[in-house]
Amino acid sequence: MVNDKIILGHGSGGRLTQELVRDLFCKYLGEAGPSSLDDSAVLDFPEGKLVYTTDSYVVSPLEFPGGDIGTLCIAGTVNDLAVMGAKPLWLSLGVILEAGLPIHALKKIVQSIARTAEVAGVQIVCGDTKVVEYGKGDGIYINTSGVGVLTAECLPESIQPGDKILVSGTIGDHGMTLLTLRKGFELELELKSDCAPLNGLIENVTAEVGVKWMRDPTRGGVATALNELAEGREWGLLLQEDALPFSEPVRGLEELLGLDPLYSANEGKVLMVVDAGNAEKALSLLGGDAAVIGEVTEAHAGKVVLNTTMDTLRTLGVLTSDPLPRIC
Amino acid sequence: MVNDKIILGHGSGGRLTQELVRDLFCKYLGEAGPSSLDDSAVLDFPEGKLVYTTDSYVVSPLEFPGGDIGTLCIAGTVNDLAVMGAKPLWLSLGVILEAGLPIHALKKIVQSIARTAEVAGVQIVCGDTKVVEYGKGDGIYINTSGVGVLTAECLPESIQPGDKILVSGTIGDHGMTLLTLRKGFELELELKSDCAPLNGLIENVTAEVGVKWMRDPTRGGVATALNELAEGREWGLLLQEDALPFSEPVRGLEELLGLDPLYSANEGKVLMVVDAGNAEKALSLLGGDAAVIGEVTEAHAGKVVLNTTMDTLRTLGVLTSDPLPRIC
Repeated sequence: MVNDKIILGHGSGGRLTQELVRDLFCKYLGEAGPSSLDDSAVLDFPEGKLVYTTDSYVVSPLEFPGGDIGTLCIAGTVNDLAVMGAKPLWLSLGVILEAGLPIHALKKIVQSIARTAEVAGVQIVCGDTKVVEYGKGDGIYINTSGVGVLTAECLPESIQPGDKILVSGTIGDHGMTLLTLRKGFELELELKSDCAPLNGLIENVTAEVGVKWMRDPTRGGVATALNELAEGREWGLLLQEDALPFSEPVRGLEELLGLDPLYSANEGKVLMVVDAGNAEKALSLLGGDAAVIGEVTEAHAGKVVLNTTMDTLRTLGVLTSDPLPRIC
Repeated sequence: MVNDKIILGHGSGGRLTQELVRDLFCKYLGEAGPSSLDDSAVLDFPEGKLVYTTDSYVVSPLEFPGGDIGTLCIAGTVNDLAVMGAKPLWLSLGVILEAGLPIHALKKIVQSIARTAEVAGVQIVCGDTKVVEYGKGDGIYINTSGVGVLTAECLPESIQPGDKILVSGTIGDHGMTLLTLRKGFELELELKSDCAPLNGLIENVTAEVGVKWMRDPTRGGVATALNELAEGREWGLLLQEDALPFSEPVRGLEELLGLDPLYSANEGKVLMVVDAGNAEKALSLLGGDAAVIGEVTEAHAGKVVLNTTMDTLRTLGVLTSDPLPRIC
């Protein structure tokens, strides 16, 4: 390509757009990319219910320890499908480029997209490219939507007191990574985003164990996701603080700065509610740092409550407004 | 809602986001909107092939004679599905809001979305809201993806010399409207965008007549869309200049400023190639200003050629780079 930066003409729909799509997007997406340069894809949908989702990604900075906006825009949408009990099949990719974005930066992002799509086993089947003037964007914004087929429907109505709440690993890593990066904190311990597709892991569990509810606790974190589950219910959710898995750097930030990782975003973790009798099995299938972090209780109806290490109860409300915008 | 402008907290994923989604998006989308506030939708896909598309909308200004970004983001994606021969079913809606956007402006856009979705008979089944800082966007950028079911597959391989090229109405209105608006031209005649969903019209034709190829000539206009069809083919496309339908204001702009409406975007027109024997029938079904504008020829293989009113031949190349960015 002649230019080493994105120019407005790359969004014209003419020759320059075609070149960008063919020589950059399609080239670096490779096997994960669409089979033609057409606007739309014609696909064979398998038998079953269709699950459909969309997410835009405006993370800043574009690259961070553990991933970049390319990793994120695939993992995030794949995970939204996976927690609905769907097998993710196809993704769309819509990019809004700011004029001036270096082509090599775009190439790197597209390579991340390809790599993550391959890990997740999904195909990017259609796409769109727009370019806005310098100063009207922030490098690149990405929207991916996703289509999957329902394989393991959750039934939150079947949740009852005694059911266990599980998390698939350490809490708050993505949000805390972005925070330290943006605020310029120097950490002794390496902290990185957990950004990763979860569909393989989730399929392993749902194939063996009935899961009553799943959610990927992204913006708003574990506390907000659980509040969405609890709201208006006749039962409550009681978390045990001493059971919460945190990575060392996140625990350090919590103690040092008083930040609450329960409200910090995760991009590669899943929360599950399962029957008490299934908890051990689910835990072993999740592996790693997965933990039972609490249970469904008759008390605290409609609320999420934390039993602290000092044995006091603290109600965890919904995040009103994140102090840190643009984490995904 | 307490605020009269979008603030960063509206993108936090917490309470403010929930309120914005519930009290603005869901409220004003009404019947056209999703049935729950969940991230994703579970849907029954009918029998047949699935058609999937995506488009981001960055039009500037957000409102223009004949429509706004809300009309455009539904019509554009519906039309992408319709020209694939699909019946559009469901759309996703991902918005990137710039902090400072007045809530009333957003409300108006969402109302346009609802109205256009109703006209097109499509449902918005899932959505996402992100907010970027003031100065990192331009009011609102929207991505819609769409899913449809294939009802009338086109077979461009069956195109042969003698086939007719049709357009469903006047050419270049959308692009010329945006141009006059952005350049501040004062026109005596009213010029407005043709922005509208075409699925109903297209279904009327495809139900009665076999269509070999269809395309909505958006960015790059009629000339670019036809070039994409002709490229690499053993036949050519010959257009008759005196058959091209233009609105009076567009013809005026062409004569006055030397602008070529064949490269100007349309947002509510469809190009079709049909068997010569079907041309009259298709024309009557398209109605209005629809016209046969040319035919497939043995000569000019791989090219689009214009037979001008002065009886000279001019090859119409692909637009390289639009002089006017952000028209959709």
